[in-house]
Amino acid sequence: MDDENRLWRWRQRTEVPLFAASVLFLGCYAVQVLAEGIGPGWEALLRAVTYGTWALFVVDYLVRWRLTGRHAHFVRRHPLDALVVVLPLLRPLRIVQLYETAQHRHVRPRLTLYARVIAYAGLSAVLLGFAGALAVYSAERGAPGTTVRTFGDAVWWACSTLTTVGYGDVTPVTGLGRTVAVGMMAGGLALLGAVTGSFSSWLIQTFTLDEDRGGPPGNPPGARPR
Amino acid sequence: MDDENRLWRWRQRTEVPLFAASVLFLGCYAVQVLAEGIGPGWEALLRAVTYGTWALFVVDYLVRWRLTGRHAHFVRRHPLDALVVVLPLLRPLRIVQLYETAQHRHVRPRLTLYARVIAYAGLSAVLLGFAGALAVYSAERGAPGTTVRTFGDAVWWACSTLTTVGYGDVTPVTGLGRTVAVGMMAGGLALLGAVTGSFSSWLIQTFTLDEDRGGPPGNPPGARPR
Amino acid sequence: MDDENRLWRWRQRTEVPLFAASVLFLGCYAVQVLAEGIGPGWEALLRAVTYGTWALFVVDYLVRWRLTGRHAHFVRRHPLDALVVVLPLLRPLRIVQLYETAQHRHVRPRLTLYARVIAYAGLSAVLLGFAGALAVYSAERGAPGTTVRTFGDAVWWACSTLTTVGYGDVTPVTGLGRTVAVGMMAGGLALLGAVTGSFSSWLIQTFTLDEDRGGPPGNPPGARPR
Amino acid sequence: MDDENRLWRWRQRTEVPLFAASVLFLGCYAVQVLAEGIGPGWEALLRAVTYGTWALFVVDYLVRWRLTGRHAHFVRRHPLDALVVVLPLLRPLRIVQLYETAQHRHVRPRLTLYARVIAYAGLSAVLLGFAGALAVYSAERGAPGTTVRTFGDAVWWACSTLTTVGYGDVTPVTGLGRTVAVGMMAGGLALLGAVTGSFSSWLIQTFTLDEDRGGPPGNPPGARPR
Repeated sequence: MDDENRLWRWRQRTEVPLFAASVLFLGCYAVQVLAEGIGPGWEALLRAVTYGTWALFVVDYLVRWRLTGRHAHFVRRHPLDALVVVLPLLRPLRIVQLYETAQHRHVRPRLTLYARVIAYAGLSAVLLGFAGALAVYSAERGAPGTTVRTFGDAVWWACSTLTTVGYGDVTPVTGLGRTVAVGMMAGGLALLGAVTGSFSSWLIQTFTLDEDRGGPPGNPPGARPR
Repeated sequence: MDDENRLWRWRQRTEVPLFAASVLFLGCYAVQVLAEGIGPGWEALLRAVTYGTWALFVVDYLVRWRLTGRHAHFVRRHPLDALVVVLPLLRPLRIVQLYETAQHRHVRPRLTLYARVIAYAGLSAVLLGFAGALAVYSAERGAPGTTVRTFGDAVWWACSTLTTVGYGDVTPVTGLGRTVAVGMMAGGLALLGAVTGSFSSWLIQTFTLDEDRGGPPGNPPGARPR
Repeated sequence: MDDENRLWRWRQRTEVPLFAASVLFLGCYAVQVLAEGIGPGWEALLRAVTYGTWALFVVDYLVRWRLTGRHAHFVRRHPLDALVVVLPLLRPLRIVQLYETAQHRHVRPRLTLYARVIAYAGLSAVLLGFAGALAVYSAERGAPGTTVRTFGDAVWWACSTLTTVGYGDVTPVTGLGRTVAVGMMAGGLALLGAVTGSFSSWLIQTFTLDEDRGGPPGNPPGARPR
Repeated sequence: MDDENRLWRWRQRTEVPLFAASVLFLGCYAVQVLAEGIGPGWEALLRAVTYGTWALFVVDYLVRWRLTGRHAHFVRRHPLDALVVVLPLLRPLRIVQLYETAQHRHVRPRLTLYARVIAYAGLSAVLLGFAGALAVYSAERGAPGTTVRTFGDAVWWACSTLTTVGYGDVTPVTGLGRTVAVGMMAGGLALLGAVTGSFSSWLIQTFTLDEDRGGPPGNPPGARPR
């Protein structure tokens, strides 16, 4: 209907600037966490930019909620959107929609189905891991008995958590750090599902097609609904 | 047949009170474990409520077994029911049936298939993790050389176990604690299967549909048997 | 063909005694590992029974290889059989065939497809874990700096390994123990695949069917090829 | 088209020598890492062979890129090829294509679909684990506070990482070692997906077919697109 069209147009117009804003948000947060001893002026500027971009996300959410006719099920049907408004650090996860917007400019997608799912899951893992490492590092820094001494430790911990390997040589000890960690474990589970599911489906599909016609293997076949 | 109808009516009538009883059971157990130094009167009351609710579960099980004509295969076809009678701490896992009962009041389910599976698996994980953390905490508390010092440690351990991350910074050392842990590992495996399977199916389905018709992505499509 | 029939008859006749022999083999090995200070006479008897049952497995393998017309692809098509001849500790994994033999006596299987896969994977996990814990315990016992002090520790380690949780509080340090552990990790991966794949398929199927007809949920639906 | 044919011919002709070169590369690297105190002459020779084989991979990549008409999408459609040119240690992962080339000489593949996927994932895991253990061992050797003391430790660490068990008793501490480890975690995830997906599909298929016709179970059925 008309609302759908206006919503669609709004999203197409706001997708790129909003993604830029989310990257800016993540960047400012990273500088606030990692850069120590920058003047109070810079601190204030960074904080202002952070809250400003956050406000942008809230405005965008409200506009889209309004464009859908203020239906309550909008909140239910877009849980990820509601989540990134509350936790803007997760905002870059919406990169998939930027990717989709770029996709729809072409007649046929450039990547196959499974390759796109894996690319999305991989990008989400990188962004989620980076944001989580920042949050855990800022929460654990200076805590007594913590093993997260440098930001490198935090990144190392994030990788071993998202892949559910969980060495345990670096683990958060503060309540906040552990809360972030639990969220990242859930994220790791979801990414694990997307990556493993897509990869095995792609591999089985490749071997199957390759069996039907003895062609050169290894090229991902065209996307087909599974 | 008629038995089926009577069983169905019985369950619809008892679903809500039984779920309240199971929440009451979990709550009383939690207070018994966490609250220290409440008077012996309260202790007795809590214990009485705990065993009373447990008795309710047994009665419900027997009634339903009778309504199915005392068929032996009732026990085999409802392993979860038999399990929650033996281990009432797992009783809240039957929340899915309360959810289903609520669902059937509407013409069409509100959530899509995969969203419902994920919601069920998530709820089960939260309840299983909470019950397991309580049991492990009460088993490990005061054990020599244990790393489960506070209930927060037990919750942290439960999360890292259910997601199969397994840091190992907090692990049970007593036989009872480890027995509970093994049960939670199996539960983690099952939840892992439900969450990852549903999430990847949902993601692949989303990307697929989005490919067929260049519509706005991200909204979970209608449930369809896979 | 006729060979197929004779092979089938041979297997039906030998399935039960061979499974008893494999349980006997596992039992004797367990007693040899766990029971300390039983007289040398008992030691010799146990060792004799162990090697005797092992010989039975080899004979059975050769007979079946012969009944298939000595085709080389018999070895390739039954990797599990070849494996249990080399590593008789894994022999109980063939419990699935005993189960199948029992199944085929009925017109229709009692359990649904996914329930049977989960039951098989669960049984395999229990037997594989028990055998692996025995082997690791006998390899690590008395090794300097080992964390596997009691058989309970070995069982605890086996559970956390098969579920890929991997706490790391108990880990083998000897070369033999670690070799066994690597084999169990691979087994854990395979079991993880069977359990999670079947459970999520079963859950999705349950929710799907339950959606089509608003019947009482929770009963596993009839097996259908997926 | 013609290019496709020439590319196909080129690959069939170069597959075997290139795989030999990749094995040679891995072997030389292994000797350089593990053998200590071999004369400088040998060192120089090994280094020469290493770089020479690397050059071969680059030439092969360029030739194939040229045979595809210098299309840019060749780089995109063969990410694995581009990766093994940058990281030749991963070159043996292309063993699947050697395997496929051998397959196509027969009318019908010898192994079933899932068995081939599992065989490929298993071979990849072994080669990836060996290369990763070598890289981590050479990076960690002599680092202060490292737990990777012997090459056996590195192999043990590689196994527990690829299976996402992650004991944490042996973990890299240097930046380079951890970078390699992160790559292996991602590889472990992908292999986990391939192995678990294929194994559970195969198991479900076996139980399903076995249900339709009460034949002897356990033999993997013929490959069929899933």
